[in-house]
Amino acid sequence: HIESTLCSPVTFGRAVLSRGTTTVVAEPHEIANVFGVDGIEEMIRLSRDSPVDIFFGVPSSVPSTDPDYETTGGRIDTDDAVRLIRHHPEVICLGEIMDYTGLANMNSPNTAGMINSVRSAAPLAAVEGHCPSVRGLDLAKLLYAGVDSDHCLQDSAGLLERFEAGMFVEIQGKSVRPEIVDILSDRRYEGLFAFVTDDVPPDILERSGHLDHVVRTALGMGLPLGAAVTASSWAPARRMGLRDRGAVSPGKLADLLLLEDDSADFRVRRIFRKGRDVTKSPPPAPAEGHSNGFGSRFLSSLRLTSRDIRDDMFRIPVPAAVGEVSIRAIEKNPENTYTRERIVSLPAGGGEVRWERQPGNLVLVIDRYTGTAGYSAGYLTGCWFRNGAVATSHAHDHHNLLAAGDNADDMKAALNRVIRLGGGIVAVSDGRILGELPLPVAGIISEEPMDRLAAQVESVTNAMRSLGFEHANPLMSFTTLTLPVSPDIKITDKGLFRTEGTEKVTLLVD
Amino acid sequence: HIESTLCSPVTFGRAVLSRGTTTVVAEPHEIANVFGVDGIEEMIRLSRDSPVDIFFGVPSSVPSTDPDYETTGGRIDTDDAVRLIRHHPEVICLGEIMDYTGLANMNSPNTAGMINSVRSAAPLAAVEGHCPSVRGLDLAKLLYAGVDSDHCLQDSAGLLERFEAGMFVEIQGKSVRPEIVDILSDRRYEGLFAFVTDDVPPDILERSGHLDHVVRTALGMGLPLGAAVTASSWAPARRMGLRDRGAVSPGKLADLLLLEDDSADFRVRRIFRKGRDVTKSPPPAPAEGHSNGFGSRFLSSLRLTSRDIRDDMFRIPVPAAVGEVSIRAIEKNPENTYTRERIVSLPAGGGEVRWERQPGNLVLVIDRYTGTAGYSAGYLTGCWFRNGAVATSHAHDHHNLLAAGDNADDMKAALNRVIRLGGGIVAVSDGRILGELPLPVAGIISEEPMDRLAAQVESVTNAMRSLGFEHANPLMSFTTLTLPVSPDIKITDKGLFRTEGTEKVTLLVD
Repeated sequence: HIESTLCSPVTFGRAVLSRGTTTVVAEPHEIANVFGVDGIEEMIRLSRDSPVDIFFGVPSSVPSTDPDYETTGGRIDTDDAVRLIRHHPEVICLGEIMDYTGLANMNSPNTAGMINSVRSAAPLAAVEGHCPSVRGLDLAKLLYAGVDSDHCLQDSAGLLERFEAGMFVEIQGKSVRPEIVDILSDRRYEGLFAFVTDDVPPDILERSGHLDHVVRTALGMGLPLGAAVTASSWAPARRMGLRDRGAVSPGKLADLLLLEDDSADFRVRRIFRKGRDVTKSPPPAPAEGHSNGFGSRFLSSLRLTSRDIRDDMFRIPVPAAVGEVSIRAIEKNPENTYTRERIVSLPAGGGEVRWERQPGNLVLVIDRYTGTAGYSAGYLTGCWFRNGAVATSHAHDHHNLLAAGDNADDMKAALNRVIRLGGGIVAVSDGRILGELPLPVAGIISEEPMDRLAAQVESVTNAMRSLGFEHANPLMSFTTLTLPVSPDIKITDKGLFRTEGTEKVTLLVD
Repeated sequence: HIESTLCSPVTFGRAVLSRGTTTVVAEPHEIANVFGVDGIEEMIRLSRDSPVDIFFGVPSSVPSTDPDYETTGGRIDTDDAVRLIRHHPEVICLGEIMDYTGLANMNSPNTAGMINSVRSAAPLAAVEGHCPSVRGLDLAKLLYAGVDSDHCLQDSAGLLERFEAGMFVEIQGKSVRPEIVDILSDRRYEGLFAFVTDDVPPDILERSGHLDHVVRTALGMGLPLGAAVTASSWAPARRMGLRDRGAVSPGKLADLLLLEDDSADFRVRRIFRKGRDVTKSPPPAPAEGHSNGFGSRFLSSLRLTSRDIRDDMFRIPVPAAVGEVSIRAIEKNPENTYTRERIVSLPAGGGEVRWERQPGNLVLVIDRYTGTAGYSAGYLTGCWFRNGAVATSHAHDHHNLLAAGDNADDMKAALNRVIRLGGGIVAVSDGRILGELPLPVAGIISEEPMDRLAAQVESVTNAMRSLGFEHANPLMSFTTLTLPVSPDIKITDKGLFRTEGTEKVTLLVD
């Protein structure tokens, strides 16, 4: 998901090429949530000027749940999926199928229909999976439905079961652990797995690396270099059906890395792209007539003004006599993007909850697409902002306007600043902007060069940390508060959702 | 090439299914030579009613050489190829590239252009090759051009070179020899080769089998059963990118064979197609509303009448004084489809060659497409018809009208009968029809059921043999006399061609 690196396809391509990646298969479901097919086709158009080859998967899950559960600017239905894969040579697979529970329960006609239609229309295209911890008969049902890869966190038993069932496994950095690397080192599994990345924020890309970082970690745990190379060249090329790359042979693209040595450091000495040494300088900028930039229609995507941020949004009404209320809070852990439900008590008075300056944050998600500014309110604990607020228009996957804070004034200031920027992330304390990152393209993407973008991200994440939001990855952690398919409890503009988006629950508990 | 079995896709499907084949990748270049894209699309339409899955390669070489060297009813250019592969999900590869010499000489802009355009439009599609005995740098150049498979006759050194260069090898029955099977038994090459068929006439299919015959031959030479199964299921499915078949796993089609035992006899006990036992009875006939038959526009493809068979076609003029002439004859061997040039002497007199009742045949190829009945004459030795003639409209690849005989009357009778039938093969002796096979569809295909068709073929080939045409495969041998890309000397309606279609030569030698 290039959009998760907050940049344009060209900027993304330059950044990953310098890390030794020469081919990308991207799944643009973030921009699809904002602009639908139009957004996807703009990503494809701009990718043609990237210094690496960028292929695409059709986003299969836009919206991630149901239009009743989250408002989006775009939707991708089966007809769209078939059209995209038939009309664009760059579109080579169906992107990660998120509704694995529906498929495993054989109770997901829309998803099954999309898979079947795409397979009929494009029999050579892969169908990419998202099958967290699925095992046994459920795993067989996913394979039966046509989903034959998985990019989720693996444990040893689940990984072996996938290999035995004929499922291709895409190993993210989070799955690179000693017991997994032990299995991957067995030559019998060569060709059955690849290293991949998912969402990589710009600051982490600049600091630690991209796919090279995943490979380096695996090498550090003892994976043989040959296995690591296969898993990041031949195996993914075969998986995706890309016949012209993935091996050193006549007729294959001369996309080559020369390493300093065969150590686990995986230090790249020279990078060749289509036979040209691009180590020192990436390929020349696009020729005249090509545009690096998104069309102007993608630059004003927030259908909101400051007048839409109304005082009543910050009031949670309760009966006048009530002095204390039980609130269904979203408890955030400092490690990953998962959350848990936690019931907390808050004081009340004068007919509303007294949530300000309490140990937690009010959370608001405001519809930015329909012009009605519908919203819902939640409450955040565990990891939250003290004496300030953060607001953003980059909020997975629907990318409505999200704000969290311990006081209304800072929340309003942050929200209004995001609206003023036409999208972005803004941290405010005592009315003062501590850090901001403009994301004017679709409210989720910047057109700044990578170094500047990484600096802006760092300034915003530093601001988030200075407000007490102590998390390993503050940006992804905060911006996935709104993703209903992610466990356990998340919030959209339509309300609070539990059980991976299948159950709507109330904020106030009786 | 289904058309080489002289039958419709449905009849072909029924025949090969009973032999244990459940998926076919066909290349309809025969009908494409007669009807172009329209013929290909009719094959695709009819294949939907076949009891096996039939996928297609785009015929890349129609005509096989140049419009100046052979008249055809249809042509496939780069735009056609791109359209076919983009518009039809059943079209999954670019069919065998015949112009290997041009590509190896890097002197074939049309072919290279078609390959590049198809690879851009359909990056997941395979490009199929025809690389007879190509080695070394030439082989690398073919791979460089994008041709990364070969279905030609292999020797050990060439086979190993192909594996090492990353070329997929498709093993026809003719390549199944002990020294080749020894190599294929090495597990290191598993997945790098598949068993295939090329042109299989109906009588041979009925008598010996189809792909099962190739597999059985290899097993008889000691190939392990596992290797044989991989080479006729998983390996070709991977080669073609067909993700839903080729292995026993959840989500794969339940196209299964149960064998009687693991002997080299490869006796099939039960055949399952999509989970249904079809051993005793093939799947039901197509539902109403589907048509088994070719559209009526495919039934009158010969733009000739008996008036077009003119007496002067049978005269080879020479100066009146000449008593003997040297003729550049096509010498046919009794083993395979290759020919050699041989200079023979024939008597002359009265201003023409006295070719009748000599040890050889006059050969005529008459344009059946443009209405002008342009023709050329040649002379056949080595393997030829005595006291009779044979004519056919099934003459590779252009499928003009071909006749050979030792007297003009029988040749005329045979030609006129083929015209009367709207296409077919007819053997005549002393004015009497010895055997005939009507091929009314495009002049190359019959709509009879397979058993009847095989019997007709047998009758015609028996008639050919009774006329002294002693050849292992009389039908293919005779009907490839007209294929200019085949070594060493062949004849089209435009003349005699040597050196695999690159050099036009005269009949009379000074």
